[in-house]
Amino acid sequence: MNEFENLKGFYDRYPSEWVAWRELVDTVEETAREFGFRELDAPSVEPTDLFRVKSGEDIVEETYSFVDKGGREVTLIPEQTPTRARLVQQRKDLGTPIKWFDTSKRWRYEAVQKGRDREFFQTDFDIFGVESVEADAEIIACAGTIFEKLDVADSVEFKLNDRQLLDALLRGLGVGESKDVMRVIDKKEKISRKEFLGKLEAEGVDRETAEEIDELTAISGEMESALVELSNKAPESEAADEAIGRMHDLYNALSAYGVESMCRFDLSIVRGMDYYTGLVFEAFATESDLRALFGGGRYDDLIGQFGSRDVPAIGFAFGYSPTMQLLKELGEWPDETISTDAYVLTISDSVHEIGLKYAMDLRRGGLKVETNLTDRSVGEQFGYADRINAKYTIVVGERDLNEGVVTVQNMASGDEKQIPKDQVVEHVLNLL
Amino acid sequence: MNEFENLKGFYDRYPSEWVAWRELVDTVEETAREFGFRELDAPSVEPTDLFRVKSGEDIVEETYSFVDKGGREVTLIPEQTPTRARLVQQRKDLGTPIKWFDTSKRWRYEAVQKGRDREFFQTDFDIFGVESVEADAEIIACAGTIFEKLDVADSVEFKLNDRQLLDALLRGLGVGESKDVMRVIDKKEKISRKEFLGKLEAEGVDRETAEEIDELTAISGEMESALVELSNKAPESEAADEAIGRMHDLYNALSAYGVESMCRFDLSIVRGMDYYTGLVFEAFATESDLRALFGGGRYDDLIGQFGSRDVPAIGFAFGYSPTMQLLKELGEWPDETISTDAYVLTISDSVHEIGLKYAMDLRRGGLKVETNLTDRSVGEQFGYADRINAKYTIVVGERDLNEGVVTVQNMASGDEKQIPKDQVVEHVLNLL
Repeated sequence: MNEFENLKGFYDRYPSEWVAWRELVDTVEETAREFGFRELDAPSVEPTDLFRVKSGEDIVEETYSFVDKGGREVTLIPEQTPTRARLVQQRKDLGTPIKWFDTSKRWRYEAVQKGRDREFFQTDFDIFGVESVEADAEIIACAGTIFEKLDVADSVEFKLNDRQLLDALLRGLGVGESKDVMRVIDKKEKISRKEFLGKLEAEGVDRETAEEIDELTAISGEMESALVELSNKAPESEAADEAIGRMHDLYNALSAYGVESMCRFDLSIVRGMDYYTGLVFEAFATESDLRALFGGGRYDDLIGQFGSRDVPAIGFAFGYSPTMQLLKELGEWPDETISTDAYVLTISDSVHEIGLKYAMDLRRGGLKVETNLTDRSVGEQFGYADRINAKYTIVVGERDLNEGVVTVQNMASGDEKQIPKDQVVEHVLNLL
Repeated sequence: MNEFENLKGFYDRYPSEWVAWRELVDTVEETAREFGFRELDAPSVEPTDLFRVKSGEDIVEETYSFVDKGGREVTLIPEQTPTRARLVQQRKDLGTPIKWFDTSKRWRYEAVQKGRDREFFQTDFDIFGVESVEADAEIIACAGTIFEKLDVADSVEFKLNDRQLLDALLRGLGVGESKDVMRVIDKKEKISRKEFLGKLEAEGVDRETAEEIDELTAISGEMESALVELSNKAPESEAADEAIGRMHDLYNALSAYGVESMCRFDLSIVRGMDYYTGLVFEAFATESDLRALFGGGRYDDLIGQFGSRDVPAIGFAFGYSPTMQLLKELGEWPDETISTDAYVLTISDSVHEIGLKYAMDLRRGGLKVETNLTDRSVGEQFGYADRINAKYTIVVGERDLNEGVVTVQNMASGDEKQIPKDQVVEHVLNLL
């Protein structure tokens, strides 16, 4: 018969592969917890209208959206921000800061290609209800700590900008409608200088100002010196001075957290989405041609569109696929190997139940234990113990038991030791 | 504006509620790992045809099934068994036993009512590739250990039966097509004796045999004595004797695991689904009118329907909602309270960055730490520390720092202690 396949863009992750994923997810979630983010759980399916608020009608084409049996238009969530907006709006009693994380699956109906999965994991981090630089700094510090824990902090950098700062600078140069100009700046990295200037002129910016914008948005680098350069080159503007001051405060906080060396100021970072209102940042791999690992920013005006109260917000969504690629490139992807603390080997049927008792007592001690479920020979059992990477094999045999002992074999060294039969569990627990 | 709501049958779980869920999920997964089950990850959406194999065309009506933008009929997985069958078939190289678990969401389009959610979590446990009683016993022992860890083992019992045993007994009584009769037995608990006998007669069983079936299927209770009773009452049959012997072996293994006191033999347990081929079991709450917590069994013929090789299998799906209800009834549901190890309080802006350093160093020590993100007063900060249940508040103030100390306050007792400022992190790490 025909065998079945999974859908394109969806993944089967067998246990050995999943071991490595699990380690990565655990690192991300452990960091979230240490920073005081609280885990929540929310639906994977929402009314399509919820996504229209932020993304308009296009969202229907880009997602798994369908009409359910009750006639409701529903969508497999492509992101969790609209859901979180709903959750923040429906519980006015929540004290601030509201700091949330969770890891869950998201779905997008995309052309299947490398790095564009139709089903993917994300861990969303958000701080709601606080407008301060301190919240901005905490978000960056948290993201930076993830890479520290993954031992790749030296190979990752955060490019930071502030939309309010950019807006103030543009206004200082006489640009009225800064959003259209920002969209051009967002594309700057991908186009030639000539094209860049042309596109600015197409937005009604005169040639001279376009050149000034080109020069200003070239400012990037180590934060402290970039901010000095910016102060020197910036047009006179109170708003700009204020925004530069805020960026200085951010730098000081990032230094206190010890993550300032991962951060660069880059005035050309805008991020595509219109809803960002302040800090924007993207994580890049410095020694790789990977696209941005992920990005985030402040979106103080978005939550208010989902209900009756305005709530400032800053966050990012940690995406797993690009980080997985980076870790593989750097040789830091965890081993795709299952692990087992102990295998209980039984030499004959007559000792099978004694073997089960040992297995159970070791498990009660918190160990990961397997034992013989079939009528395998001693050799086959050792082969299985090796295959599941058992650290120790507990060999239970009738002759040994009659002499009051059980043999414990270290599977790496091959060393074996006879242990009094009533001290086996304690002995193995102490070894591990 | 109108605020948004989640879909009916879907749940928002805010952090305080989720704390308790997380504890339950962690207990289930920890048990799985200790028993040597390996975690995997698989798609949440599969081709609808995959579910038709096991469940026929009805599955379309009972699930979130729709046609995607590429014209594919797809389904949000209502269970993971068909996916696992696919995974087992597509990797012929996997050595046995294949022991898998994972916790993920499932979806069913059901009439919304208590205990019937449209989106729900399940942890599936399966052992593939092993036909032995040992695998049966390990599955039950694993399920039993979950309830031991939840401190409710005394209030849960597993009703066990073996379809092959029941089949042998029915054949011994002259019943030819035992599957139809088993379907009647499956309903026995819910109908009167008269109805039961009538339904058996409607299946072509004569009155006398129907009464014998009624008597036999009344056998239930502590396994050892029930098996003695069964041996006495069973019609002469080699197949029945063999099946009774197998149940004895299972009892011995369950005793070795120490979970036999949770197990009862019950010849009326059949489980609805036709695909079970051997052991069947259901977990019940003994002091509650909750329906079965979950059930499982052996299904040796199912995997072969998904591909070219036959693979014996036994498993169960741990369902969370009924267990949650049980734990609540028994007062064993974990506290719905967020927890925090330390809050770093800063008395003035001037010490803010020193506070950030302490917070970061405590986090590097693995603690869950929050600090001040706004311009809150000392009183407001203590209020916040209390609200997030911080165990300790580290009070950083300029005057203290000038004297070389920081104050650490135990939030439960109110005791405070001045600690040399360079020993604060070590001190707090030692306290926790």
